[in-house]
Amino acid sequence: MGKVILTGDRPTGKLHLGHFVGSLRRRVELQNAGDYDRMFVFMADVQALTDNADNPQKIRNSITQVALDYLSAGLDPEKCTLFIQSQIPELAELTTYLMNLISVSRVQRNPTVKTEIKMRGFEGESIPLGFFCYPVSQAADITLFKATTVPAGEDQEPMLEVTRELVNRFNNTYGPVLVEPNIMLPENLTARRLPGTDGKEKMSKSLGNCIYLSDSADEVWQKVRSMYTDPTHLNVSDPGHVEGNAVFTYLDAFSTDEDFKNFWPEYQNLDELKDHYTRGGLGDMKCKKFLNEVLNQYLEPMRQRRAELEKDIPEIYNILKKGTEAAREVGAQTMSEVRKAMQIDYFG
Amino acid sequence: MGKVILTGDRPTGKLHLGHFVGSLRRRVELQNAGDYDRMFVFMADVQALTDNADNPQKIRNSITQVALDYLSAGLDPEKCTLFIQSQIPELAELTTYLMNLISVSRVQRNPTVKTEIKMRGFEGESIPLGFFCYPVSQAADITLFKATTVPAGEDQEPMLEVTRELVNRFNNTYGPVLVEPNIMLPENLTARRLPGTDGKEKMSKSLGNCIYLSDSADEVWQKVRSMYTDPTHLNVSDPGHVEGNAVFTYLDAFSTDEDFKNFWPEYQNLDELKDHYTRGGLGDMKCKKFLNEVLNQYLEPMRQRRAELEKDIPEIYNILKKGTEAAREVGAQTMSEVRKAMQIDYFG
Repeated sequence: MGKVILTGDRPTGKLHLGHFVGSLRRRVELQNAGDYDRMFVFMADVQALTDNADNPQKIRNSITQVALDYLSAGLDPEKCTLFIQSQIPELAELTTYLMNLISVSRVQRNPTVKTEIKMRGFEGESIPLGFFCYPVSQAADITLFKATTVPAGEDQEPMLEVTRELVNRFNNTYGPVLVEPNIMLPENLTARRLPGTDGKEKMSKSLGNCIYLSDSADEVWQKVRSMYTDPTHLNVSDPGHVEGNAVFTYLDAFSTDEDFKNFWPEYQNLDELKDHYTRGGLGDMKCKKFLNEVLNQYLEPMRQRRAELEKDIPEIYNILKKGTEAAREVGAQTMSEVRKAMQIDYFG
Repeated sequence: MGKVILTGDRPTGKLHLGHFVGSLRRRVELQNAGDYDRMFVFMADVQALTDNADNPQKIRNSITQVALDYLSAGLDPEKCTLFIQSQIPELAELTTYLMNLISVSRVQRNPTVKTEIKMRGFEGESIPLGFFCYPVSQAADITLFKATTVPAGEDQEPMLEVTRELVNRFNNTYGPVLVEPNIMLPENLTARRLPGTDGKEKMSKSLGNCIYLSDSADEVWQKVRSMYTDPTHLNVSDPGHVEGNAVFTYLDAFSTDEDFKNFWPEYQNLDELKDHYTRGGLGDMKCKKFLNEVLNQYLEPMRQRRAELEKDIPEIYNILKKGTEAAREVGAQTMSEVRKAMQIDYFG
C-alpha cells in the first residue's frame, strides 16, 4: 500500500478564498506533484446533511457549485478521483460497524465535536444524533479508501485520533484490514486560516465577509476596496499597523516577489511594503489595488475555466459520476475485506 | 400499499421455547393465514453485533442455528421472505439519514433503550455508540420495507413510537415516502412470556433454564423432569399451587383439550387438572410427563424437519440468499425513493 490522500468539503455553499488558502490550493499542488499513489477529493453531502437535514436543496445546489470550484481551481479528474459521499453506500455500512467499537462518552469527549456543537448553537441535548456521530462517519470516509494522508488543519487532529483508535480496535478485533491515517498539516501559518474581509477571524457566508472563487472581477474589487485595514491609520501620513490588518494578511497569503516586479516595482517585496506602511505615508487604497491585482492572478484563470465549464453542467455530473464509480470500486473492495474479517460474508 | 409484516430475531444463539411462544408460533400462524401482502422475517446480525462486536463467531454460528429453527418451526420461504440484515446495505444508508432527524436526548429518553442498557450492564457512558443508536437502526429495518405491522411484545411499543416519529419527520421534511408501522401485540397473556424451567421470569441462555427447539427428546424430558413446580407441594397428598408453577404456566401456553383426550383422558381439560392439583393428591411427575407429551407434539415434527434440513446446510444458505435478494429489491426501491425525496439522486 502506498500513499493515499483523501480530502473533501461539506457542500454547504460555494467555496471562497478561505477554502482556497486553507486546502484547495494545496490539493492542486499535491495533485500536480504526483507524489502519491492515489488522491481522493470528495463532497461530503452526507455529513452536510447531519446539520442541514431540513435543507436538502441547499446541499443539492452546492454540489454543482463546489464541483465548479474544484475544477476551476485546477483539480483534474485525470489525476484525482472526485466523488460524492452519498453515492458510496459502503460508507454507511462501514460507519455502522465502526460505531460498535467506540463508546458514546468517547465521542462526547472529542474537543472538535464540542467546538462544532457550540458553533452550531445546538443546545445541550438537541444535537441531531447523526451530527453527534459524525466523527465515526468521518473515520469511515478515511478508512474505506485506506487513506494514509489527510491534509487538514490542526483543529482536525482529534478527529484523526478517533480514526486511528477505530482502526486499531477494528484490526485487533477482526484482523488487519484498515489503515491508520496521518494528518498532513498546512506548510505555513498564513495558510492556516484566512480572515474575512471585515478582519474577523474566519470567512463565513453568514457574516457576508467572503470573497468567493466564483466572484466576478468587479465583485472582488468592491470587496477588496472595502476591506478592513487599520482603524488608527486615518491619514496617509499616519503610521500603519500590519498585524490584524486583513489586507496584509491576504498579501502574506498570496503575494510573491514576482508580483511586486509585475505590479508594484516601487517595492522589491512584501517586507519593504510593510516597512513603508508601518512608517506612515502609504495609503490603504494603493495597497488594496495591489492586492486586487494579486488576487486576480489566481481568480481570473478560474473565472475563465468556470465560464467554459458552466456551458456544460451535465458534463460536470458525468465527471462526478465517473469519479464516484471509481471510488466505489475501491470502497466495495474494502467493504468486502471488512465483511470477510467480521465473518458476515455469508454468501461469498 | 397493503399489509406488510416485519419481524426478526437477534442471532445470538439458538431459539428456545420462549421464542416459540413469544413470536415464532405466531409468525407461522400469520404466514399460513395469508392475511397480509408480504411478510419479512429477518436475522438481525447487525443489531446483534452492536453489543457483541468482539464475538463475530457467535453471530456467524447463530445464523445457521436460527435459520434451522425458523424452517423447522414451519416458516416457509415460499410464503415469507427470510433475510439476513447485514446483507442489505440500504439499511445502513437509511439509518444514516434517519439519524439526522432525531436528537441524542430523544434516544436517551427511550425506556426500552434504558432497560436494555441496564440489562447488559453497560456502565453509564461505556455504551457502544452503535448500541445506543439501535432504535434508529430498528426504525430503518421497519421503514425500508414499508412494514405496516410489527408483531412484538408491549415492551417494544416505545421503539415503535420512535419509528413513527421518524416516519413523520422524514415525510414532513422530504415528502411522503415512509410508512407508519403499528405494533401487533400477542393475542393472550400466556403467550407473552414463558418463564425458564427454573421458574425464573425469563428463559435465558446464561441462566441455563431454556428448552431449545433443537433439543433432543431426551434432553427435553430431562429438563421437564427437573422443572420448578411448587416448593410447598412436598407430598402427593399436599395441596398444590399452580400460580408461579412453571409446569402449569407451560401447560397454559401449550396444552389443548385435545391433548387431554389423547394423553390423559382422566381429565377433560386443564381446569380439571388444575383443580385436582390444587386440592392435593396429584404428583408433579404425572404432570411433567403430560407436559413432556404436549411439548413433544410441537418439538418432534421440528426435530424431524431439522434432521432433514441439516443434511444440506448449503441449501439453507441458498434459501437465505434468495430471500435476501428479494428483500434487497424492496429495500433498493425504497432507498431510491428516499434519495429522490432528499434530492441526493444526482446521477439518476
